[in-house]
Amino acid sequence: MAEIKIIPVEEFRRLQESVDDKHERLGLIADMCRANALASVKRAGSGHLGSSFSSLDIVTYLYYCEMNTVKLGMDHPDRDIYFSSKGHDVPGQYAILHSLGVLSGDKLMRLRRIDGNCGHPDIGTPGIEANTGSLGMGISKAKGFSIAKRLQGRGGDIYVLTGDGELQEGQIYESLLSAAHQNINNIRMIIDHNKVQTDKLVSEISYLGSLEERISSFGWNVERCDGHDFKSLEKALARLNASTDKPGCLIADTIKGRGVSFMEHPQSLKEGDGLYRWHSGAPDDESFSAGYEEIVRRVNGRLAALGLEPVRALPVEPENKSSSGVTREYVANAFGETLVEVARKREDIVVLDADLAADCRLRGFEKEFPQRFIENGIAEQDMVSTAGGLALQGMLPVVNSFAAFLASRANEQIYNNACERSRIVYVCHYSGLIPAGPGQSHQSVRDISLIAATPGFVVVQPCNAVEARILTEYCLNQSKENCVIRLIIGPSPREISLPSGYRAELGKGAVLADGGDAVLFAYGPVMLHEALLAQEILESESFRLRVVNMPWLNRIDNEWLRDVVGDCSAVYAVEDHAPQGGLGDRLARDLAESSMLAGRNFDVFGVEGLPAWGVPAEVLRHHGLDGESLAKKILNGPKNSAAL
Amino acid sequence: MAEIKIIPVEEFRRLQESVDDKHERLGLIADMCRANALASVKRAGSGHLGSSFSSLDIVTYLYYCEMNTVKLGMDHPDRDIYFSSKGHDVPGQYAILHSLGVLSGDKLMRLRRIDGNCGHPDIGTPGIEANTGSLGMGISKAKGFSIAKRLQGRGGDIYVLTGDGELQEGQIYESLLSAAHQNINNIRMIIDHNKVQTDKLVSEISYLGSLEERISSFGWNVERCDGHDFKSLEKALARLNASTDKPGCLIADTIKGRGVSFMEHPQSLKEGDGLYRWHSGAPDDESFSAGYEEIVRRVNGRLAALGLEPVRALPVEPENKSSSGVTREYVANAFGETLVEVARKREDIVVLDADLAADCRLRGFEKEFPQRFIENGIAEQDMVSTAGGLALQGMLPVVNSFAAFLASRANEQIYNNACERSRIVYVCHYSGLIPAGPGQSHQSVRDISLIAATPGFVVVQPCNAVEARILTEYCLNQSKENCVIRLIIGPSPREISLPSGYRAELGKGAVLADGGDAVLFAYGPVMLHEALLAQEILESESFRLRVVNMPWLNRIDNEWLRDVVGDCSAVYAVEDHAPQGGLGDRLARDLAESSMLAGRNFDVFGVEGLPAWGVPAEVLRHHGLDGESLAKKILNGPKNSAAL
Repeated sequence: MAEIKIIPVEEFRRLQESVDDKHERLGLIADMCRANALASVKRAGSGHLGSSFSSLDIVTYLYYCEMNTVKLGMDHPDRDIYFSSKGHDVPGQYAILHSLGVLSGDKLMRLRRIDGNCGHPDIGTPGIEANTGSLGMGISKAKGFSIAKRLQGRGGDIYVLTGDGELQEGQIYESLLSAAHQNINNIRMIIDHNKVQTDKLVSEISYLGSLEERISSFGWNVERCDGHDFKSLEKALARLNASTDKPGCLIADTIKGRGVSFMEHPQSLKEGDGLYRWHSGAPDDESFSAGYEEIVRRVNGRLAALGLEPVRALPVEPENKSSSGVTREYVANAFGETLVEVARKREDIVVLDADLAADCRLRGFEKEFPQRFIENGIAEQDMVSTAGGLALQGMLPVVNSFAAFLASRANEQIYNNACERSRIVYVCHYSGLIPAGPGQSHQSVRDISLIAATPGFVVVQPCNAVEARILTEYCLNQSKENCVIRLIIGPSPREISLPSGYRAELGKGAVLADGGDAVLFAYGPVMLHEALLAQEILESESFRLRVVNMPWLNRIDNEWLRDVVGDCSAVYAVEDHAPQGGLGDRLARDLAESSMLAGRNFDVFGVEGLPAWGVPAEVLRHHGLDGESLAKKILNGPKNSAAL
Repeated sequence: MAEIKIIPVEEFRRLQESVDDKHERLGLIADMCRANALASVKRAGSGHLGSSFSSLDIVTYLYYCEMNTVKLGMDHPDRDIYFSSKGHDVPGQYAILHSLGVLSGDKLMRLRRIDGNCGHPDIGTPGIEANTGSLGMGISKAKGFSIAKRLQGRGGDIYVLTGDGELQEGQIYESLLSAAHQNINNIRMIIDHNKVQTDKLVSEISYLGSLEERISSFGWNVERCDGHDFKSLEKALARLNASTDKPGCLIADTIKGRGVSFMEHPQSLKEGDGLYRWHSGAPDDESFSAGYEEIVRRVNGRLAALGLEPVRALPVEPENKSSSGVTREYVANAFGETLVEVARKREDIVVLDADLAADCRLRGFEKEFPQRFIENGIAEQDMVSTAGGLALQGMLPVVNSFAAFLASRANEQIYNNACERSRIVYVCHYSGLIPAGPGQSHQSVRDISLIAATPGFVVVQPCNAVEARILTEYCLNQSKENCVIRLIIGPSPREISLPSGYRAELGKGAVLADGGDAVLFAYGPVMLHEALLAQEILESESFRLRVVNMPWLNRIDNEWLRDVVGDCSAVYAVEDHAPQGGLGDRLARDLAESSMLAGRNFDVFGVEGLPAWGVPAEVLRHHGLDGESLAKKILNGPKNSAAL
């Protein structure tokens, strides 16, 4: 593990006092923040560097020169407000807030930990003004801030940073129109125009054209500048501030990965064969060291030229992450491979993606069937309705995105498609609670409930690669209904064994561990792992827990259920989903309507409250969903004392 | 009741054969379709005339001159495809399809009936290509049609009509960008630019600017024409068809209400004191007769000038609608009045609307507190995130729209706000199954399930005006959580009496009719009326049904529940919501977890399958949710035989 260091706040204070030239000083601060952001992401093991780096000069300028926020204080009613609509660039913002003394060094280095900073902005963190991370909401929120200030007679302008890929989200245009109409003229929208979205050029993913023309056609003033040149930023913001007749937008041309040569577009895109590697995820040790040294060398070179001492950095204690196991199995890989295999035999299959092709394991399909692969950009609603049109014309669309975005943002479009009685397969990637580092914007613990009340949907989730193949094949080839395939995005914590001869039978799961004291229903690799851990712990207490893999999340075969519940005096469900609207509710209803609950205890262990962020073990523990907590609840739970 | 007549298809055939001048013929056909659309809406008792009339010349031109659809047949794979993205103008399209012999006269006149045509387009109707009615999805669907045709090697272009108010929906811009990028160049987007949305000018509701500049900045070719001048339409479409390098948009300037002088903007807007009266709803007898006669007089004048016989119209049998009762009570009125009363004492209350101010009973607030009223246009996502910003700055936003749009389209934004732990009151108007005439796009039978898994939400629904006041006051002044107020939009079918001294107690409802054989939980004026009907029917069978008004849809007080269930051997819930994710699921879970189900039967009567359209009685009957069906199920239901 590479040594990780932090540049302490004192060093930023030293620069403030000793470097006279404003722009020189800003450049040094931004670069030192780059070093700290890089260190925090490396320590966390994940995070978004590319856009933290492209936006860092802008955000530095705003906090240090443009806004009154630091002077007035982060809670002052008249303060200027800054936040990033894209949100994933928050490691850069954390570094700046640390440089200003708002965030402690300890907190800065506890990125994506339960007692540290979230992977996307959360208002619980000092200096963070809004929760973002799902794209396109920023200008709308800024409108709310501005209107509230107006009604309350408070001062302060609103600065909201957006991405350029983010401009594919429709909500952006809703908010551009309404802000212009409502004369919300103290908003400064700044586009971090770094030209690269998740891993491809914006211009490759969607129509770009002239951003100036596009934004100004919505009734906004538009300026443009070099987002890495503080003089250019200064002048452009001054021009924008001078025009108060409309809301103002600054298109800041930036470079994704700015500040670390091999992370910079366009070089990095060339090196990655057209794919940008540094959007998210932590660099390996070698890349980290090379990048860190490059930044520090540059900083020290400038300091030396100014006759100043080199920057001082303090070592940070290494991470001590506990993990309850990890394998090399990815259910999403099995899905992606099966999709390609089935598509070789079926010409009607067409795959849609919203700029998450790599995460959704669609590159194989994209490569083999480019004509049938629709890269739709970050526009989930458009993607889903496009699938609706395709389905009406006889195609079988397979629609992909993260569950948090697909089931929620495109919910009405999914319902509308269902009203047309066509057939579509929706694949909800990154479902559930884990990985928890990115926080609530990305954790999906409501998706089952968002679909379950829509008629004609089967919702499934595989527990391992074998079942992922079986269920993908079922959804594509066998089902006559709309299907939702719920997939975790990370590796399986263990490789679960299914009974030999196991196959897809609607509404019927599989007993993974037998036992007659109580039965626990679970689904997916993460929760079944914890369920099996609980079973193992309970076994040592002579409590025999039956663990059932139930991949059908909204369909339960009644006879099978009666059989599998058997003589157990207690029935439990555990889910990486809210306790409402998931498998637990379905079980309760089916058990209640079939009078199977007489004399039995029943309880659902789900994600209560908002999902916590952090590493898997601490988050599962926080929600009482780790094996040990489950075992305790089952053994000692007050609700279920009769079962013992 | 005014006499209603239909111009039969033979009359259209006569014109086709006897009028040589194309444009003269088109004008006559369009006007005769106006007469038939007006008659169908009058017979239905509701429907959208203003935009049926503004778009009718365009749609007439498309079907009669531009498209190959009629020639090839409505199911031909190479056919051109037309549909309206806004959808509510479908009475006009039905009239055209009837004039072409695609729809029978009988079907045309059974608008908004269960065995007739839906109030918004449904693909079950011949000639209808897509389900629309919720705005903004059209271009996306057109993309899907086009890509499918391309992949299948089929011919045919796609014509999609949009509104101008509809251009406030963000999905429009998602689809403009992706269509341009994906070179979907055989789409013709036609904007029915009639300048008026629900009841106000588009330019009063949102930023308008230059539509040409706006659309072309997204990479589209744009033409403009007079949408009531067939020559102008012809030329503009020819210009658009000549450019195949980009997708094409035609801005057709039209007049809302075109063809009936007193329905035409701008005259009608002046007469309505700035409010347009003819967007939806049927005209009264006098207006109907005047409008109908004006159209027919014009048609006959033209026919006479051509030396042709006047148009022949056949009388239509009057409607025979059964209704299970109606009062003058509107829960939404009580909400709107209470909102104003509370806002007089609380300056932090701010109200947001998405162009449904009259329906949502917000005009009183708008008038008294114009500064605190935000008309946000048809942009639900933007509205909800704006509320998020307002709440973070200490305001209490009250967010209004129809439940089908608010809970679904803005679902991710609602969740994002919840993640910020602020407090917002969402008002889901037009919730439930009834009125069913507008069809699935407007019926909201999933909204509870769409919210229930979001932490920190209380969902309530009042059963009468008194309770509407109590719960509105509770949500505004007492609750510390986010609240959803679920309201029906129509009049209460009966005025329900609540026990004296009734007040808001979280999780506790009220017994409306006592009885010890079974207990039935219900909520809202519509379903409680049916529940009480069932109770009355059962009483005559000596079966005593306890009917409980349960306004807390996701919170149940455990002791109260135990008390109210008492010795009843069967527990039922009835809801104008899907059986998943509503009160029934909540009851099942709470009863199961508290071991209250031993020896009791349990069943949930909800809206199974997609909601049907029609008049209330036939739709309730269709879903088995009318009092008589409920009584039968409770008395004879196989699941519950043990209860008798």
